[in-house]
Amino acid sequence: MKIKYDLKHVDKNTKARFGILHTNHGDFETPIFMPVGTLATVKTLSPEELKEMGSAVILSNTYHLWLRPGEDIVKKAGGLHKFMNYDGPILTDSGGYQVFSLAKNKKKDITEEGVHFKSHIDGRNLFLTPELSIQIQNKLDSDIAMSFDECPPASADHEYLKNSIERTLRWAKRGKDVFNNENQSLFGIVQGGPHEDLRKFSAIETVKMDFDGYSIGGVANDDESKEDMYLAIDYSIPYLPEDKPRYLMGVGDPIDLFEGVERGIDMFDCVHPTRLARHGNAFTRNGKINIRNEKFKEDFTPIEDTCDCYACKHYTKAYIRHLIISEETFGARLLSIHNLRFLIKLMEEMRVAIKEDRFLELKEDFYSKYNKK
Amino acid sequence: MKIKYDLKHVDKNTKARFGILHTNHGDFETPIFMPVGTLATVKTLSPEELKEMGSAVILSNTYHLWLRPGEDIVKKAGGLHKFMNYDGPILTDSGGYQVFSLAKNKKKDITEEGVHFKSHIDGRNLFLTPELSIQIQNKLDSDIAMSFDECPPASADHEYLKNSIERTLRWAKRGKDVFNNENQSLFGIVQGGPHEDLRKFSAIETVKMDFDGYSIGGVANDDESKEDMYLAIDYSIPYLPEDKPRYLMGVGDPIDLFEGVERGIDMFDCVHPTRLARHGNAFTRNGKINIRNEKFKEDFTPIEDTCDCYACKHYTKAYIRHLIISEETFGARLLSIHNLRFLIKLMEEMRVAIKEDRFLELKEDFYSKYNKK
Repeated sequence: MKIKYDLKHVDKNTKARFGILHTNHGDFETPIFMPVGTLATVKTLSPEELKEMGSAVILSNTYHLWLRPGEDIVKKAGGLHKFMNYDGPILTDSGGYQVFSLAKNKKKDITEEGVHFKSHIDGRNLFLTPELSIQIQNKLDSDIAMSFDECPPASADHEYLKNSIERTLRWAKRGKDVFNNENQSLFGIVQGGPHEDLRKFSAIETVKMDFDGYSIGGVANDDESKEDMYLAIDYSIPYLPEDKPRYLMGVGDPIDLFEGVERGIDMFDCVHPTRLARHGNAFTRNGKINIRNEKFKEDFTPIEDTCDCYACKHYTKAYIRHLIISEETFGARLLSIHNLRFLIKLMEEMRVAIKEDRFLELKEDFYSKYNKK
Repeated sequence: MKIKYDLKHVDKNTKARFGILHTNHGDFETPIFMPVGTLATVKTLSPEELKEMGSAVILSNTYHLWLRPGEDIVKKAGGLHKFMNYDGPILTDSGGYQVFSLAKNKKKDITEEGVHFKSHIDGRNLFLTPELSIQIQNKLDSDIAMSFDECPPASADHEYLKNSIERTLRWAKRGKDVFNNENQSLFGIVQGGPHEDLRKFSAIETVKMDFDGYSIGGVANDDESKEDMYLAIDYSIPYLPEDKPRYLMGVGDPIDLFEGVERGIDMFDCVHPTRLARHGNAFTRNGKINIRNEKFKEDFTPIEDTCDCYACKHYTKAYIRHLIISEETFGARLLSIHNLRFLIKLMEEMRVAIKEDRFLELKEDFYSKYNKK
């Protein structure tokens, strides 16, 4: 069975949408943030911990699973859910972003057929095509698969992007043609940088192919400005159908979640919260803190008094600081739980606010504290 | 309140003892294996996971906590239990073993007053004395503290050991004299290498000081033979009182647990099971396996069908192998749970066997499978 999106309510003052996405592994409300389980594990965490924090759907990376352990092993295990013992919905990306961001020496050779590049692990030659990406994902048996796209650098000029989009459209068609998993849904991806005409063209042409949902890509590059990200969303959304979910790929900063939801995005993912955690950073309503800071040495209060996560209910900043400084992985685990719960709870609050037509009120309240520092 | 040991039954055919140890943080049955939480955390695991696997008491390291975060911070947090959110019994060692095993460049200067050495973290000069070790442990507020002893190398000759034991006895007295925590108990430590006369002398003189329990030390050095370890126990036990617990320090190999229990030991600790886990090794009833082995690549069965641990109930060898090879910490976490549960369950079985006077039967059955390889 394919996924089904029910749009329940649109905020009166913005494009923020509240909806429900039905999948073969359960339903979840949108907008939603998806923790990233790159290698079939959300780093340091168990599936039970993800459930306890209210995580309803996770993302896993096709490129990484292709290299380790290999899609055939996952298939033999009975698919990704069984392999990793996670019975909730899973979304897989196409590998496109990793090819462009992780290829050894950043060198790759993009042809009409696909992309030649070298493994980030051992440097061996790899060749990923739209068909192969889909075939891998079909075997992984995630609930939602992504089309294979080119992720051009933010610095790419208009002409390069135009050609890139046209190729990505041909790749999307090729992927769709070989797609063969009736229990999996497939999203198309809109590219086009910060250019209104290109986003419009990419969105219209992608939607013509009738995917189960639509992603907005090319916004998560570090060198891209926030303003360009917001423009990319603004220029894409008007051409996406109301009855399909919209997914902004690779975005997980709290401010960006608000900006994305306000513009009509339903789904987000990012390694940001768990990566920050491993470096000792924690989200708080008053901005990010680094737990290594000397001032937390004798701070026997939780990261946030108001947080309901496992870490905040049981541990102090002084203890977590000690763990992080001592490189004890339980510290990264506690901060990962906190940071993910922070974003998940933020999305819960956004959903309630949308239903009550007070999204902007919630946003302003959050910004006034978060940006205060 | 001090701990209290109730001897309940001695196996008819061996010296194996079944008993109950009462502490301020709960009672537990002996013989028992204690997971090691070096830096106020059993690496990768939560207190809840320790409870779920049946762990009743843990050990933490005075030397490590002295350096990070420092005993004063732990005291300000309300003691070690509150600092790490663990409400079960905790035993702390004296730091003596770490001074001798971890001192930078293995160089140290042993004087009557104490030991001068360099920090294994930053090389700064440190000076640990019997009084300081006890004062640190008093502040950590563990349930059971250890006397500060010299841990001479296995290669030390009889004369060196004789002098070392006499100094360790003087150190034990000095530590006992400054001991000041009415909710904490203090163990004396028997040394003497594999020499009958020295173990006898050390045990008799240590027992004269009337400690709350007795440890047998100097048996966990890697370069010491198993036979010497067993002799060290055999030569010490006859001089230890029946109504006090006996603790064999730093021992966690399944075979050594059987040999120790058979000789009358009640308590064991070792980093072995968790360290093995981080290197991809798992205990099984048929001997140790390394999960990295190619033969487990498509093995979709648990580490052990008969094991009741969280890892074996939910995950396959193929998945855990993938995690370990990909250096995902969830893999080390799953193997740590399995290895600890393996030893804890083994001790549970030993306790039942002792009560039923069939300890040797259990031992023979275990050995016949474990040593088969």
